[in-house]
Amino acid sequence: MSGNGERQKIPFDADRLDQLLDEAGIDVLLVSSKHNVQYLLGGYRFFFFDYMDAIGRSRYLPILVYPKGAPEKAAYIGYRLEKHEKEARGFWVPEMRPASSGTLDAMQMAVEHVQRLGLGSGRIGIETAFLPADAYEALREALPQSRVTNAITPLERLRAVKTPDELGKLREASERVIDSMLAVVGGHGPGATKRQLVDALKREEVGRGLTFEYCLITAGTSLNRSPSDQVWQQGDILSLDSGGNYHGYIGDVCRMAILGEPDGELQELLGEVDAIQQAAMRPVRAGVRGGEIYAGAEAAIGRSPRREHIEFVAHGMGLISHEVPHLTDRGPVQYTAEDAERPLQAGMVLSIETTLLHPRRGFIKLEDTVAVGPDGFELLGDRGRDWNRGNLAA
Amino acid sequence: MSGNGERQKIPFDADRLDQLLDEAGIDVLLVSSKHNVQYLLGGYRFFFFDYMDAIGRSRYLPILVYPKGAPEKAAYIGYRLEKHEKEARGFWVPEMRPASSGTLDAMQMAVEHVQRLGLGSGRIGIETAFLPADAYEALREALPQSRVTNAITPLERLRAVKTPDELGKLREASERVIDSMLAVVGGHGPGATKRQLVDALKREEVGRGLTFEYCLITAGTSLNRSPSDQVWQQGDILSLDSGGNYHGYIGDVCRMAILGEPDGELQELLGEVDAIQQAAMRPVRAGVRGGEIYAGAEAAIGRSPRREHIEFVAHGMGLISHEVPHLTDRGPVQYTAEDAERPLQAGMVLSIETTLLHPRRGFIKLEDTVAVGPDGFELLGDRGRDWNRGNLAA
Repeated sequence: MSGNGERQKIPFDADRLDQLLDEAGIDVLLVSSKHNVQYLLGGYRFFFFDYMDAIGRSRYLPILVYPKGAPEKAAYIGYRLEKHEKEARGFWVPEMRPASSGTLDAMQMAVEHVQRLGLGSGRIGIETAFLPADAYEALREALPQSRVTNAITPLERLRAVKTPDELGKLREASERVIDSMLAVVGGHGPGATKRQLVDALKREEVGRGLTFEYCLITAGTSLNRSPSDQVWQQGDILSLDSGGNYHGYIGDVCRMAILGEPDGELQELLGEVDAIQQAAMRPVRAGVRGGEIYAGAEAAIGRSPRREHIEFVAHGMGLISHEVPHLTDRGPVQYTAEDAERPLQAGMVLSIETTLLHPRRGFIKLEDTVAVGPDGFELLGDRGRDWNRGNLAA
Repeated sequence: MSGNGERQKIPFDADRLDQLLDEAGIDVLLVSSKHNVQYLLGGYRFFFFDYMDAIGRSRYLPILVYPKGAPEKAAYIGYRLEKHEKEARGFWVPEMRPASSGTLDAMQMAVEHVQRLGLGSGRIGIETAFLPADAYEALREALPQSRVTNAITPLERLRAVKTPDELGKLREASERVIDSMLAVVGGHGPGATKRQLVDALKREEVGRGLTFEYCLITAGTSLNRSPSDQVWQQGDILSLDSGGNYHGYIGDVCRMAILGEPDGELQELLGEVDAIQQAAMRPVRAGVRGGEIYAGAEAAIGRSPRREHIEFVAHGMGLISHEVPHLTDRGPVQYTAEDAERPLQAGMVLSIETTLLHPRRGFIKLEDTVAVGPDGFELLGDRGRDWNRGNLAA
């Protein structure tokens, strides 16, 4: 038993994880990213280090030890203050040790557990981008017979199809980000700076129970997306592209606003962006190959006289932005197209983004979240997609 | 020149950093933690990744390359969206490259810069707890002739004495956390859960321009500090121990409240905790050895009949909790006493915490922040240190 709370059931598909680990040639997982620890611990994320990592001369390093095929032998190494969480709630892991103070003692406890399991010379899966160098070296030194490999692929594959509970959180996140944006736009007018608008959006999101993550923002004809002292002026368009999470699940939406009335050209431009979004979403349903999303968008973009100023991207999302399904290899190094030829699955969630970098009128973008359904898709947050009016009297 | 903004002056004491690197035997620094990048870039912290790290199949990894004695050859490798920041503001680093998408391309650019500087076989200082394993391996493979060492000591020593601007931010952080606590206590009464109180505190802190980090909370006679559905009831005491940052600088304060009136024993217990705090602060001024803080506190604790239930800790703070000066080696592994025999310096900032884990009355704690002055100390946020009254009518 772990803790005084009731023992939880395993909150993820352990058979699926074991199969993925088998394919990846991994005997035991050492999971150390906040998002994958949260996923494997059924939504648990230690509140004390939700924002920060650094403490003292080291940092927070949670480690979940999961031996393939034997969840009854899993262990979770937590920070010493997690003893309060152990008391207050149940954990499914048979061994929950809230005893670390930094990276090195956390890894030492994880290594001891791996040794007790008799897996010290096995194939160990780590998250190479989320395990600090000192803990990694300690692992290599303590278990020189082991082989260490990156476990990102099995872990992100495991998270690809969302449960109804996860879909509910993603829906809430998206709706609440949109509500926050509409409140900010309706409450601000000429003279507000981009920084003030972002600060207001942060308050609105937090007031709605979200954790604010960021807001990219443009005003007027500028294409610069950083919060700054630039003033939103009468006649100016505005873009708000913000991420906020609800219990870890990300809402990531872009909406447009204007101080005044959009002229015919602006109506046409946002209409074109919207048409590309619709063309991208239209084919979305379970069984369709992922690449159809790009095919739909690209056909619509190809018809536009402004096509050289349009950027389109679609990507899976959930606990992090840009996760499975991966649909394109165009763009920065993190992109792959490995899911373009695979069928979409019901419960996958996609972020779809069309950006028009108009040389004369400015930055015009819509970003939407859609959940793949058995016969179609659900648009999570179907509001505010037209020109929203700022408050000229504010 | 970096960016279109005006070129900044070097915002830290470069001579001091060079001296510290010399003592540590480091030729070139690769700084990759958010807090040290912020410090060396004069307060700059990329807003998009302020909360999150993960994106796609990798994560955000800023890298500041600083060759000892040659700031004019420094470079900053940022994420590709940091191009907007480069346009919008000045950076002192001669080369600012907002071009990475993850850990590996960031490290590749950093390595190329080190090679251009002719330091590829030199002694490289990294932050071992803040450099991911994959970037670390890429560094070792790309520069096999180099020696890699941990640079945490020179970096935390560099930050030990705060500038007036930093002190101002720490003062604001502390005051605003206290204001937020007093607002929450005054606005809540019987029936509020610990989780609701923490959510309210988060809104209050964010509404005051802080980034909320966490709140440890106890209610009634329980010693459990996790937010939960436990209800704050008439007669219950309450502790709120919260961290929130103002432009990265942490306010970290603990205050007590009660729903009703404290009886004589509660008055006495909090009075005793306060007396230990005062005894710890009393010797604080520049030139006094750091250990005097513990000597003062321990003398007061020794006189208490409840001494076996009292925990005391004092530690430096600033951009992170628990930094230089390090005053004790009792406690978890991250603690060292290396500054106990050294003189305090004006501009150092200390967090001082006394906790009474009373077996019958509950968790009673004060945590204060003090800035070391030339002739004494300044208590940052000298309010709310008595029993604050909850709102029985709420």
